[in-house]
Amino acid sequence: MDKKERILNALRELFREGKAGTASVSDIAKKAGIAKGLMYYYFRSKEEVMDALILREYEDIIASCNEIVVQSGGSAIEKLALLVKSYRGAYMDETLDEYLHMPQNAAIHQKSLAQILSSLSKVVTCIVEQGIEEGVFTCGYPGGYAEVVMSVLTFLLDPGIFPRSGEEYLIRLRALAEMSEKWLGTQEGSFGFLYGAG
Amino acid sequence: MDKKERILNALRELFREGKAGTASVSDIAKKAGIAKGLMYYYFRSKEEVMDALILREYEDIIASCNEIVVQSGGSAIEKLALLVKSYRGAYMDETLDEYLHMPQNAAIHQKSLAQILSSLSKVVTCIVEQGIEEGVFTCGYPGGYAEVVMSVLTFLLDPGIFPRSGEEYLIRLRALAEMSEKWLGTQEGSFGFLYGAG
Repeated sequence: MDKKERILNALRELFREGKAGTASVSDIAKKAGIAKGLMYYYFRSKEEVMDALILREYEDIIASCNEIVVQSGGSAIEKLALLVKSYRGAYMDETLDEYLHMPQNAAIHQKSLAQILSSLSKVVTCIVEQGIEEGVFTCGYPGGYAEVVMSVLTFLLDPGIFPRSGEEYLIRLRALAEMSEKWLGTQEGSFGFLYGAG
Repeated sequence: MDKKERILNALRELFREGKAGTASVSDIAKKAGIAKGLMYYYFRSKEEVMDALILREYEDIIASCNEIVVQSGGSAIEKLALLVKSYRGAYMDETLDEYLHMPQNAAIHQKSLAQILSSLSKVVTCIVEQGIEEGVFTCGYPGGYAEVVMSVLTFLLDPGIFPRSGEEYLIRLRALAEMSEKWLGTQEGSFGFLYGAG
């Protein structure tokens, strides 16, 4: 494993142990089993290690969602349902998630939301194009649909930015389903998977 | 004018003079014509004054957009067009806008985007409900439509979060128009005002 990976794994380990907040650069280096001087060759500060770890965690989530969808070989709607399910079920370490939602970490939070939006929009665009080819969807802007859906999932439904009750959350998922059915021209209820129906 | 307002006006003046970045709490107090000790009664730090100024600027923009729309007395589509026009034309001091897009100010940026989204969504919801009453729109979730549109305008189209060319920007506005026409059940082209047509 390359040294950069080892440093990121060490920090992730420290997060799991609940020690990431107070860990120094030396602690991270020690955990990774590399010299502190060498650490600075890869990262200029603890913040840089944190940011790199968060972006890597999201890359893993995105890659795994994409793989599940591509390998499923299902219809366009089945793939969208599978993507939403994988994305929601993706495991993000709780302490890492808390870290992301602290005001002083808003910059990396924003960056990671933009990263998810850009990457998963490409996956959704492919699925919508498949649906158009299958004759199930009609949509002039598959990429536009993809980005709007991802804006809702990453920004509007982020519990750190907009704290909401379960019911308030659900009504937004119902609205997203109505939008999808009308925009893509599918039957009412076909996006029921968004709010747990069908 | 109350002292808090005077402090915020002083900082805005310093922004206009290009001196906000280097100004100290003393400089702000001096400009506001109040004792430095009194400053700390209202704000604990320069950052707090900055944040309060930005939220006030956005409140002003929101209030003015709302007023223009309410006073127009137009049809629902005319009001939506007017709202988008007022929002886009709203003046935000350039240096303040630059400040908002610096990584270290991401927290207040995120907070201000959430503030615009929540406030203007209420205005859009009222307009959509008017359109439903007029028999021009059909939509099961007027509040959902409003929030999705505002998520696109505040997050997806924020040039600081997603830098884009003019053409990339335009295609997203065309997608938003398609979404609006299909979701609200209006004629193709009726939301052409979003991308400068009609």
